[in-house]
Amino acid sequence: MTKKNLSQYAVGRVRALSAYTPGEQPSDGGWIKLNTNENPYPPSPRVRAAILEEVGADGEALRLYPHPLSACLRAAIAKHHGVDPSQVIAGNGSDDILNLLIRAFADGAHPVGMTVPSYSLYTVLVAMQGAALKEVSFDASMALPEDGILSCGANLFILTTPNAPTGVGFSNEQLSRLIGRYDGIFVADEAYAPFADESAAALLKDHPNLVVVRTFSKAYGLAGMRLGYAVADPAVIDMLDRVRDSYNLDRLAQAAAVAAIEDEAYLADTVARVRATRGKLETSLEKRGWFTYPSRTNFIFTQPRDRAGNTSPALTADLFAFLKSQKILVRAFPNHPLTSTFLRVTIGTDSQMQAFNTALDLWQTHAPLA
Amino acid sequence: MTKKNLSQYAVGRVRALSAYTPGEQPSDGGWIKLNTNENPYPPSPRVRAAILEEVGADGEALRLYPHPLSACLRAAIAKHHGVDPSQVIAGNGSDDILNLLIRAFADGAHPVGMTVPSYSLYTVLVAMQGAALKEVSFDASMALPEDGILSCGANLFILTTPNAPTGVGFSNEQLSRLIGRYDGIFVADEAYAPFADESAAALLKDHPNLVVVRTFSKAYGLAGMRLGYAVADPAVIDMLDRVRDSYNLDRLAQAAAVAAIEDEAYLADTVARVRATRGKLETSLEKRGWFTYPSRTNFIFTQPRDRAGNTSPALTADLFAFLKSQKILVRAFPNHPLTSTFLRVTIGTDSQMQAFNTALDLWQTHAPLA
Repeated sequence: MTKKNLSQYAVGRVRALSAYTPGEQPSDGGWIKLNTNENPYPPSPRVRAAILEEVGADGEALRLYPHPLSACLRAAIAKHHGVDPSQVIAGNGSDDILNLLIRAFADGAHPVGMTVPSYSLYTVLVAMQGAALKEVSFDASMALPEDGILSCGANLFILTTPNAPTGVGFSNEQLSRLIGRYDGIFVADEAYAPFADESAAALLKDHPNLVVVRTFSKAYGLAGMRLGYAVADPAVIDMLDRVRDSYNLDRLAQAAAVAAIEDEAYLADTVARVRATRGKLETSLEKRGWFTYPSRTNFIFTQPRDRAGNTSPALTADLFAFLKSQKILVRAFPNHPLTSTFLRVTIGTDSQMQAFNTALDLWQTHAPLA
Repeated sequence: MTKKNLSQYAVGRVRALSAYTPGEQPSDGGWIKLNTNENPYPPSPRVRAAILEEVGADGEALRLYPHPLSACLRAAIAKHHGVDPSQVIAGNGSDDILNLLIRAFADGAHPVGMTVPSYSLYTVLVAMQGAALKEVSFDASMALPEDGILSCGANLFILTTPNAPTGVGFSNEQLSRLIGRYDGIFVADEAYAPFADESAAALLKDHPNLVVVRTFSKAYGLAGMRLGYAVADPAVIDMLDRVRDSYNLDRLAQAAAVAAIEDEAYLADTVARVRATRGKLETSLEKRGWFTYPSRTNFIFTQPRDRAGNTSPALTADLFAFLKSQKILVRAFPNHPLTSTFLRVTIGTDSQMQAFNTALDLWQTHAPLA
């Protein structure tokens, strides 16, 4: 019997798929890591305590399956947002939640909409599902393209808000008007919302078609634990639960997340520190004369200039490489004209930002012209 | 504007889907839990140590994303099986791996095959993907239905081996003959293989279309950590990685799994203890005159009889309810004639099995006739 080449057994859309490329995670030490929007501060001390309690004296609890619904965590998230637990689902990172949304609300006959630029994972998840992608482009103002979103014909629209990689926020007033007119499921991917001034969560009571997605990876300092969630109408949560893995969150992750979300004071403190550092960085970049979008997130999106005040993709690439030579990792997005002259820089500690500024000084003295 | 009812935005196959129902997880204490095939013994002490080391003094490591490929874990698994790390993928439970297999190798034009009875999650994952399901039935002998498998026309076939819920094992000689003739991806879902005498992993070198799936939930005592993996040809692993979430395993899960798989002595000891208890339970059920399939797993599948030696679904349901009234949870499969007169009982500790036998004695004195 002749068998096919192994990859030929895979379905066509997977054979054609390019997997999402996560930001670089160097395994050696000494790096200033400003490339994946991690929190420079550790999680609440309560997180460590909760993990140790769950592990216990001999790991006995680990032999038993976790709660399939993450019931305690859903209750804690519901309390945090002032909603009913039936409006909450928890996931193995917000990427898990995004995947569930696309599996439940998209297929060959149900397109997904997104703005460009935004989180490039959406593109991969949509291709994986065999759904059509409706891209709505920003212009350089990064103002919300309301008309484009309303007319794109997507059954499910995912908006990163505040947006990434630009950091730009959208007002609840504007979002409410948009979501109220949107005939489909509207996802506000709020990975960075704790660093902003308002959250679309306040709009849930008026808009049953709104899904607010959150992560513990950024503001809660728990990227290493893979924790995210969504808040939405119970009918939407029901659909997501149907395509969710029965035990998508392990025992330690559930315990860690409950501890993190209950420590509201620690969150407020961490966020305030990041925002203060962000303000200082924005001021210093302004002094350099570099255009930087106003950030509502834990990163800034800035456009490097040469000594003559010009910008170019090559100049940006030169700075990216120079920073890497100084063991400072940032993120570049060379594949789109709206992003190719910019760098995305995570807000680190004050001293990390000083090192970053020192590196910029050094680069500017010998940088090429754009 | 008139909007649809929210669930109408979901795709048809999700609106029609019944989610998988995991075994009951009582939240109060005092239960003898023999219903979800958990290990009665805690994981290796090295697991707790590895978790504590990763958490560190203040949880600092948790703020950073985990290694996207779980590289250290893949290397440890590869070493355990004597294969190259390019032949390994790690998942958030083996359910994650099964889901990836179905997303990569099944769709509306690529059916999935399974035997009946076996793990009911397959049915849900296939329906979620919109693929056709080709069911190949066992007869009461539970011998492998080779011809049915070879002619079912599935692009991807998933065999639980040793099988569940029956516990019956299949020889590598028979599996090798079958897989060699199978034109498609053949998955040996070996959740229970460490409790058996041989593993299909030995067949990987001869059969590039074979995928061996394993879990840490049973033999390693880590159901609470959601850890599984697959070993296969690198071309198959490449397809699975394309549909895998970039960070599907958190830092603590990765550390726990490395520690568990490296402690081969602890695994051997735990498995030997479970097998010894299994032998005693099989003997006691034989003395009762109850037919029990020969188990190669950490559970037995037994057919309760009344005082007159008869069996019936109602009698089995009566015993199930009686055991529950004694705070002993087992699993019943009332929806198929091959399983409806049986109960699946996880191998617990010797003292748990004594309590189980005492409960059977008590039940038999006043049980109804079948």
